[in-house]
Formats: sequence, C-alpha cells, structure tokens
Amino acid sequence: MGKGRLEAFSDGVLAIIITIMVLDLKAPVGTDLAALKTMIPTFISYVLSFIFVGIYWNNHHHLIHTVKTVNGSILWANLHLLFWLSLIPFFTRWMGDNGFTPVPVALYGVILLFAGIAFSILVHAIIAHHGKDSALAHAIGKDGKGNVSIALYAAGIPLSFVNPALGYSLYVLVALIWFVPDQRIEREIGGA
Amino acid sequence: MGKGRLEAFSDGVLAIIITIMVLDLKAPVGTDLAALKTMIPTFISYVLSFIFVGIYWNNHHHLIHTVKTVNGSILWANLHLLFWLSLIPFFTRWMGDNGFTPVPVALYGVILLFAGIAFSILVHAIIAHHGKDSALAHAIGKDGKGNVSIALYAAGIPLSFVNPALGYSLYVLVALIWFVPDQRIEREIGGA
Amino acid sequence: MGKGRLEAFSDGVLAIIITIMVLDLKAPVGTDLAALKTMIPTFISYVLSFIFVGIYWNNHHHLIHTVKTVNGSILWANLHLLFWLSLIPFFTRWMGDNGFTPVPVALYGVILLFAGIAFSILVHAIIAHHGKDSALAHAIGKDGKGNVSIALYAAGIPLSFVNPALGYSLYVLVALIWFVPDQRIEREIGGA
Amino acid sequence: MGKGRLEAFSDGVLAIIITIMVLDLKAPVGTDLAALKTMIPTFISYVLSFIFVGIYWNNHHHLIHTVKTVNGSILWANLHLLFWLSLIPFFTRWMGDNGFTPVPVALYGVILLFAGIAFSILVHAIIAHHGKDSALAHAIGKDGKGNVSIALYAAGIPLSFVNPALGYSLYVLVALIWFVPDQRIEREIGGA
Repeated sequence: MGKGRLEAFSDGVLAIIITIMVLDLKAPVGTDLAALKTMIPTFISYVLSFIFVGIYWNNHHHLIHTVKTVNGSILWANLHLLFWLSLIPFFTRWMGDNGFTPVPVALYGVILLFAGIAFSILVHAIIAHHGKDSALAHAIGKDGKGNVSIALYAAGIPLSFVNPALGYSLYVLVALIWFVPDQRIEREIGGA
Repeated sequence: MGKGRLEAFSDGVLAIIITIMVLDLKAPVGTDLAALKTMIPTFISYVLSFIFVGIYWNNHHHLIHTVKTVNGSILWANLHLLFWLSLIPFFTRWMGDNGFTPVPVALYGVILLFAGIAFSILVHAIIAHHGKDSALAHAIGKDGKGNVSIALYAAGIPLSFVNPALGYSLYVLVALIWFVPDQRIEREIGGA
Repeated sequence: MGKGRLEAFSDGVLAIIITIMVLDLKAPVGTDLAALKTMIPTFISYVLSFIFVGIYWNNHHHLIHTVKTVNGSILWANLHLLFWLSLIPFFTRWMGDNGFTPVPVALYGVILLFAGIAFSILVHAIIAHHGKDSALAHAIGKDGKGNVSIALYAAGIPLSFVNPALGYSLYVLVALIWFVPDQRIEREIGGA
Repeated sequence: MGKGRLEAFSDGVLAIIITIMVLDLKAPVGTDLAALKTMIPTFISYVLSFIFVGIYWNNHHHLIHTVKTVNGSILWANLHLLFWLSLIPFFTRWMGDNGFTPVPVALYGVILLFAGIAFSILVHAIIAHHGKDSALAHAIGKDGKGNVSIALYAAGIPLSFVNPALGYSLYVLVALIWFVPDQRIEREIGGA
C-alpha cells in the first residue's frame, strides 16, 4: 500500500492544526497598542506552538520520505501522533489566556511529551515494517535526539509547578534542538 | 475519470472534520486540575469521535485503494458519506457538553448509523461500477462486518434511552471491531 | 504551467467551505428532542449548502479534468469563483438562524448567482486558453444549463421578497438540475 | 528531497487561511439590509485579505514551479512566510470590526510588511540553493517589484496614524501591482 494518502492526510491535519490556532486569538477590546499588549502571553504561546507543529511537519516530512510502503500499524501510529498534536491548539489557548500559570504549562508539556512518544512509536513501527537493516534504521541509530527531548519534557512538567517559566524554557530548549531537521536521516540518504 | 481528486477531496474533508472538533473544546474557567476535571465528558466524547473518523479514513483508504476509475454515482455516494461524517463534530460537542444524557447519545448513534449505511452504499456503488466479479466484490463478500456494525448502532440508539452508558458501549464495541483495518481487502489484494 | 496545484488548492478550499459550516451549527440549549427541533431551519439551510458546494466540487472536477494547462486568467477566474463560494457559510448561517426571512434568502441567492456567473467566467477563460475548437468548447456548446441556472437565481432573488419559500424553491430547483454531473462533458470525453 | 509535500502543505495552509476568515464574519443582528450595512467595513477588510492571500498563493505557485529540489533552509523560509500569512485573519477581523482606526490599520500593514520580507527571504533561500546562474535567479533579477512593495508597506504603516484611509490605500496599491502574476518568471520560463 502506497504512502501517498498517508502524506496527504497528515499534511491536511498538520496544516489545519497550525492554522486554526489563529482562530483562538481573540481580538482585544479597544484599538490602541495598550489593548494589543494584553495579548502578548497568548501571542507568545501561539508562536511556540506554530514552531512545534512546524518542527513536527518538518520531521514527519523527513521520516516519511524514507518510507516505501505502509501497513496498518504505521497508519495507526501516525493517527496516534496526529491525535496528540491535535490537542496542541486547545492547550496553547488555555496556557496563553491564563498567562502561563503552573497547571496549564505542565499540561502543555504533557501533550508535547505524549506527542514525542507517539513520534518515537511511529519511527519504531516504520523500522519494524522495513527491517532493522534498512537505511532508516541505520539513520535513526540509538535515537539520542528523540530520547533527550522526551527526557526534557518529562523534566519540564514537574518543574512547571515550581516555576512555570523554568518548565516552559525546557520546552523552548527542545524546539531549539529540533529546529535543525534531522541531520542523521539527511546524511544517510545523501551518503547512500 | 481518475480517482485522484476523490481521494484529495475526501482526505481534505476528513482531515478537517477530525481537527475542527478541537475548536469545540472550550477552555475551562480556572487553571487548576479541578477546572480541567469538568472537561472529562467532553474529552471522552472527543477521543471516541477522533477514533471513529480515523477508522473511516483508514477504511476509506483501503476501499478506494481497490478502485480503478470513478463515475457520478461513486462521487455522490462519497459526498453522501462525507455529509454524515461532517455532522460528527456537532453531535460530539452536544453529547460531551451535556454529560452523555439519553437524547444526545441516541442521536450520536443515529449519525453513526447513517454514516455506516452511507459507507455501505459507497461500497455497493463501487462494486456496481467495477463488476460483481472484481477483486473488490470478492473481498467484501457478504460484508458481515458492515452489517454487524449497522445492527449494533441500531440496537444502541433505543438502548441509549434506557441507559446512555449502555448505548454508548455498543458504539465503542463497533469502534473495536473496525479498529483493525479490513483484513478481507488486505488478504484479497495480497493473495491475488 | 500544470494544473496540479490549481486542483489541490481548490480541493482544499472547497473541502474547508463544506466542512466549516458545521461549526456554525450551535448546540441547542437543553438535551431533549424539542431543543433539537429549534435547529430545523438551520439544519435545512446547512443541507442545501452542503449539496451546492458538493455540486460545485463535482462540476469543478469535471471541468478541470478537461484542462491541459493553466494561465494567469484561469488562476484568477478560479480564485474569483472560490471567493463567492467562500461566502456561502456566512449566508447559510444568517439565513438558517433567522428562519428564512426575505432579505437573507434573497442575499443567499445573490451569492449563488455570483458563484454561477463566476463558474461561467471560469469556463470561458478555459475555452479562451484552449481554443474554440477544443473538446471542452464543443462539450459546453451554448451552455444552456449554466444560463438556465443564472436565470433561475435571478428570478429567485426578487421572488424571495414576495415569498421566501418561493425564492428558495427556485434555488432547490437549480440544485436538482445540476445534481447530475455535466453529461455533455462526459459524453464528449467518452465519445471522442 | 522533492517539493511535493512543500506544495501540499503550503496549499493546505493557504487554503485554510483564505477560508477561515469567513468564520469571523459575524452574522448581524436583524435581517434587513440596514443590518447588513453595519458589516460593510468587515466585509471590505475580508475582500482585500482574500485578494492578498490569493496573490501570495499565485506568486508561491509561480515561484515553487521553478524549484527543482528543496533543503532545510527552504522548508523553514516557507514556514516563516506561512507564519506571517497565518496572522492575516486575526488582523483582518480586528481592523474590520473596528472600522479602520489607525492602530489596527498600521498593524495590518506590519503583518503585510513581514510577509513581504518573508517572501523575499524565501526567494533568496531558493536562489542560494539553485545557484546564482539558475533560471530563477535571472528571472527575479533585482526584484524591483518586491522592493517597491516592501517600501509601500513601510510607508503605509506610519501614514495610517495620520490617516488610516491613506495608509490602507497604499496596501491596495501593492495588491494592484501584484495582481498580475510575476511576468518576469513567466517570460523567463517561456523564453528559455
């Protein structure tokens, strides 16, 4: 079974997730710059989520690029990833509208953690389907980057209860790590 | 006439249906875990609908994979299916926001029932176009799985008036039945 | 310049238009059947608009199927059509929520009229690009069906002020006329 | 790495941006023409934004048409452009609902300015990847049209504080300039 519709459906869902978040930016009361200033936390929250979904699209693009065919496990692992990503707009809004208080920041991290785990499950479903000696399996190797991200999310969640800014900083750190697309896959493809 | 745009349009509509449901998750008042707790029914309702739309996308993917060309009947049978699926977000919200009371649960089942019937009509339109001796016609056979689902929905609707949890359980049962993609088509394609 | 992205973009916009209308179905207060009954006008309005957008997708599919390449005029004629179609959700809601009073019904007809004219402009832009002796030009011929639709909309608009049900009936009549995909194009393609 | 998914994702995001703006058209209270009249500023704001997003889609189509392969910089330059465009619905609504007062009109221009700069960055990322002697690099040349647009936005922003109608007129002027798709690229492709 080809991967065309998996790509098309994922692109559709990711495009919608990244775009509908803007519907949650409620226009401020008043039309001066002070009115807009009240939107700053909501806006920061929007920007980071835009970057996170962009990173997932980018890495998804790289990952599926290596895939030749898909099976039922891959389809469901992909839907599972999209499920957690689909919750990002909700928690983005809740976190932004409440000015980064502990519980919303921690729960935002929980969603990111589950999305990270879901991406890892998808990687493993693809490796299982294509074989441990495939180019992808070699490219991922021990998946240090994925594991570090999951560890940072797991650390950020309890830290958010101590200091939300600290927890949130760890999420930003993960974004910075992933900002560069997965060099391992690019290198392996280029070198093969 | 090719099937490319039928797939693209259906992927688009299904991607939007599965994603806009999250716009209906209204952020709770307050930012503690107790505030989030009030969202549990809405969230459960969201999860099941996400799974249902995911199942339909999955089965649609398998079904259209077998299709070579499309005609007017197939295009309209497909739009008819998308129509019923498009109502899922509305009834998901109504059911979730009202804590699974009888009428919303029963009506959610009505929508699922009509979507199930519409999928069955689409299968028959495809068989009619491709011939009763096509691979697809053999793969579907007597369509026991589809008929069982329709029977379970039809039973769940009146049961919801007696006990919404009971009616809802039958819908969950259908989801479990369909969770595995249609082995019959996979087997037939693989074996042919 | 190929037609791939014209199709992809149009499919995306049409898929969104047909699906976001459901976001305007506001959940009724209360959870009994009487509460749902108040939604009947909104629901009827939704169903007809779903059918209209479905017809446009269907005819767009048939029309672009005949196209080999696109130019700037075709791209803009297509965007012009999408513009009028994009207003359908707004007027669907306004008409439905106000129980089919004269002004909303008339304005709904105005949008349909402009969409009909825009489709006609798109047809002519395509014919101009492909030549008057192309298969498409022969297939369309004098475009009686398109002209009848435009005449029916133009008649329905003033009639809505006399009796909204009468005006609305004319729109339904147009939907019935177009429900069958354009036989002329199918015949020409099949016969060529 | 191919450009297929870059096109698909961009088409998805642009299709959503252009369509969800209609969700912000709030139905007026009342059902007579006077009620609709209160919507005129919102509607004008919607029309111009529809045209702007249409222009970006059109130019994006032309630009990516010349691209053979993509790299990480192009993917991120594209996401950066989509980010600024994704804010258009928010500022469209804010500007329209407040009847074109100075601050919203100026900020709308800021978003357009950043989108213009982002498009320019994308052009340069593509040229850097394909080489300074590529057809695209020749076609763009000194990019006078892009620079004029950026200058007009930069002039429109402060002018909006003096007279919003004047600032807004400059944005309309940019739209008129870009309305015709990029002849330079078409000529170069046609002539090569």
